[in-house]
Amino acid sequence: MHAHEAGALHADVGQPVPGWLSVPNDVNALLPQLWATGVARQPDGELAVAGVAVSRIAEQFGTPAYVVDEADLRARARGFRTAFEASFPGGADVYYAGKAFLSTAVARWVLEEGLHLDVCTGGELAVALRAGVPGARIGMHGNNKSRAELVEAIEAGVGRVILDSFEEIETLAGLAGERGVRVPVLVRVTVGVEAHTHEYIATAHEDQKFGFSLAGGQAAEAVRRVLASPQLRLLGLHSHIGSQIFDDAGFEVSARRVIGLAARVRDVHGVELEELDLGGGFGIAYTSQDDPATPAEHASRLAEIVEHECRGFGLGVPRVCVEPGRAIAGPAVFTLYRVGVVKTVELDAGARRSYVSVDGGMSDNIRTALYDASYSAALASRTSAAEPVLSRVVGKHCEAGDIVVKDEFLPGDLVAGDLLAVPGTGAYCRSMASNYNHVPRPPVVAVRDGQARLIVRGETIEDLLRLDVG
Amino acid sequence: MHAHEAGALHADVGQPVPGWLSVPNDVNALLPQLWATGVARQPDGELAVAGVAVSRIAEQFGTPAYVVDEADLRARARGFRTAFEASFPGGADVYYAGKAFLSTAVARWVLEEGLHLDVCTGGELAVALRAGVPGARIGMHGNNKSRAELVEAIEAGVGRVILDSFEEIETLAGLAGERGVRVPVLVRVTVGVEAHTHEYIATAHEDQKFGFSLAGGQAAEAVRRVLASPQLRLLGLHSHIGSQIFDDAGFEVSARRVIGLAARVRDVHGVELEELDLGGGFGIAYTSQDDPATPAEHASRLAEIVEHECRGFGLGVPRVCVEPGRAIAGPAVFTLYRVGVVKTVELDAGARRSYVSVDGGMSDNIRTALYDASYSAALASRTSAAEPVLSRVVGKHCEAGDIVVKDEFLPGDLVAGDLLAVPGTGAYCRSMASNYNHVPRPPVVAVRDGQARLIVRGETIEDLLRLDVG
Repeated sequence: MHAHEAGALHADVGQPVPGWLSVPNDVNALLPQLWATGVARQPDGELAVAGVAVSRIAEQFGTPAYVVDEADLRARARGFRTAFEASFPGGADVYYAGKAFLSTAVARWVLEEGLHLDVCTGGELAVALRAGVPGARIGMHGNNKSRAELVEAIEAGVGRVILDSFEEIETLAGLAGERGVRVPVLVRVTVGVEAHTHEYIATAHEDQKFGFSLAGGQAAEAVRRVLASPQLRLLGLHSHIGSQIFDDAGFEVSARRVIGLAARVRDVHGVELEELDLGGGFGIAYTSQDDPATPAEHASRLAEIVEHECRGFGLGVPRVCVEPGRAIAGPAVFTLYRVGVVKTVELDAGARRSYVSVDGGMSDNIRTALYDASYSAALASRTSAAEPVLSRVVGKHCEAGDIVVKDEFLPGDLVAGDLLAVPGTGAYCRSMASNYNHVPRPPVVAVRDGQARLIVRGETIEDLLRLDVG
Repeated sequence: MHAHEAGALHADVGQPVPGWLSVPNDVNALLPQLWATGVARQPDGELAVAGVAVSRIAEQFGTPAYVVDEADLRARARGFRTAFEASFPGGADVYYAGKAFLSTAVARWVLEEGLHLDVCTGGELAVALRAGVPGARIGMHGNNKSRAELVEAIEAGVGRVILDSFEEIETLAGLAGERGVRVPVLVRVTVGVEAHTHEYIATAHEDQKFGFSLAGGQAAEAVRRVLASPQLRLLGLHSHIGSQIFDDAGFEVSARRVIGLAARVRDVHGVELEELDLGGGFGIAYTSQDDPATPAEHASRLAEIVEHECRGFGLGVPRVCVEPGRAIAGPAVFTLYRVGVVKTVELDAGARRSYVSVDGGMSDNIRTALYDASYSAALASRTSAAEPVLSRVVGKHCEAGDIVVKDEFLPGDLVAGDLLAVPGTGAYCRSMASNYNHVPRPPVVAVRDGQARLIVRGETIEDLLRLDVG
């Protein structure tokens, strides 16, 4: 008996197949919502991105590799900007949330597409400045910015510091005073709304590290202190309600609460705030079960909500900011792996699962283990006429939880040497990558108009050993 | 109202305090099972390790820093070796599981203490060889070893390759044949036992990527193929049943099953296997609720189990191997952080929680978020007479889930600038560390006899930017 005999894993096994997953009619087809627009099968069946075949990428850059469709990423960035500008006649700014994935190339791309950039550490700020992003286009986030980071932000002339604590108000005002500058700021408000995918939770309190509580009165007090400080210029309020949001209902509650605070600020201090930052969290598709809204849909729903709430409070509609990260970088990237060992495991009641091992794993994509995230996968180096079998894509790490794709139907004839592509890996994969098991982190390869180039080089064992001074 | 006013978080709030956590009688006391033996408070109240005050470490190496008590790590390694040698008169080898934390210094230490070393990638093998570990003392694990890694293992003359798939048997035999060598191997058996903390699950099948199924007959077939290959020398069988095991009951089932297979191998092939590798997974204390067994207790229980099963099957007791990683490196290390923002958050029903932000987070310890792991913490730079308050230690990353210690009672007067120590971070913290948010990974500082030295240097922003070639 051989461990990777193929064709035996049927879809009618019941239990081990999650409810949302069905046997594909065509295992070689690419679901459009999962892939960058430049990804397609060539006539010979091999996957190509912007005209470059995956085998060429694997040959030139090795595997695993994160492969970015540059035009797709740029189009998603541009799409957010044009959608929000169209829906908010009073003005809107789109901040790319650099934490999703940041490199100098990506920073330049989003800048060229007219976006602003959010950073949240000195390291991210260094990348932004190296890419030539003007300070005025940068927002500086963080619940625990160091004094050094605040100094760097001031010296870079960032367009906004998002204030997160009373200590920070005092520290930033002091540092600005020493330098004779006035720093533009937002006050981050926790509004008691936590939004995920298709539902949201609204509470009075928030049990988290970020921001100033609206219900507890800290947010109003923070506004008072900022307005009282000649070194700080209050642009407006900021709230962020979650991630992987598909339904804008949570924004209805959060916008009402934060715009309500803006109205009280007007009533108490006589100041009408110029800006309202609604944060990010716009969902993307990782599997066939996800059906995300377009930027235009988000923009028009948010415009409706904001206009309604401002009208209700007798406020003009402020300049609105949003902070997409995942929704811009996520779908533009797939990870290209080389298949190794393929093993069929017998489950209960006669069910079987094919374990497809690849040459990466939880070091290049921790999201599956960390968030129990679902991904999809496709055979990339060829098409297959074999029957689809229930499969799990696993890595090479010394841990049973080292899973890249929990559940997918893949061709039953996968063998060592095949290339496998996992889409939707542009956000929080390279940015959270580790060297677990001393596995070097993969390169990031950008492809555009038939040309592939490195934007982040892959590590070598020597890179890892360089830190080992013992 | 100030966000970090102290002393208001009482223990009698009910709900938010987990059942196992109680208000400490003395918030300055160190629970012995959580800390390396060289850690103690100095007369002035400051924490010191092997005679070096934490403030000196912070000054010299910065924060965060992983701080290793070298003598403690060595003692734990030695403790496992002497305990297993004492309990198994027929011989026992202890393999340090390098995946927990590996650097050349640590590899040398465990080697000097008479241990062997497990690696599971070419990168870990490179560290071992750089440290001067003889190939014969190295075991090579991995479910998806590349051809290149198998070649490296053969050329290093590793003492054992732990075989994980039929493909690998064929590939390794081929590579050995080309080189005219015979490679010593173990066959990794999945026995259908999954052990955790205080319970285990025994099933017929295992739904995971590792090994050859016992129940499915693949394990017996793997043994047959290895015995039939003149290029491979079968030392014995390997099984690994889980991690953070406090109770050896799971070993009773797994040992019976794997020794049963060894008996069938004798019956069918006339070969009595020399070795039995029982894997690792020995638990350590992360909080006051954990009460791990000593190496001597594990060794004597495992000896009893193995002797009983071998007697039952009419086999002699083979040489036994175990593979502790966490149990050697984990408790020898604490992470030293600098406190930043301290914020009190109101919860429901009048309860409050203090959010203590530190200058690291999920980039240097992903285990809290990844495994919902619990940790402890102590004010390190001084003692405090303030009332203990329910606290959560959080990092500086742009994510609400960026939690280092979920629940701990810490002094109510913690302020920015204090040093905080989180014990038990020697395993799977630095080894799984990331650069999320472009945060450089901290140094690893070894302390011995009043001397502190770097064994892994901290990264700089320049290290991160070096990879950014776009």
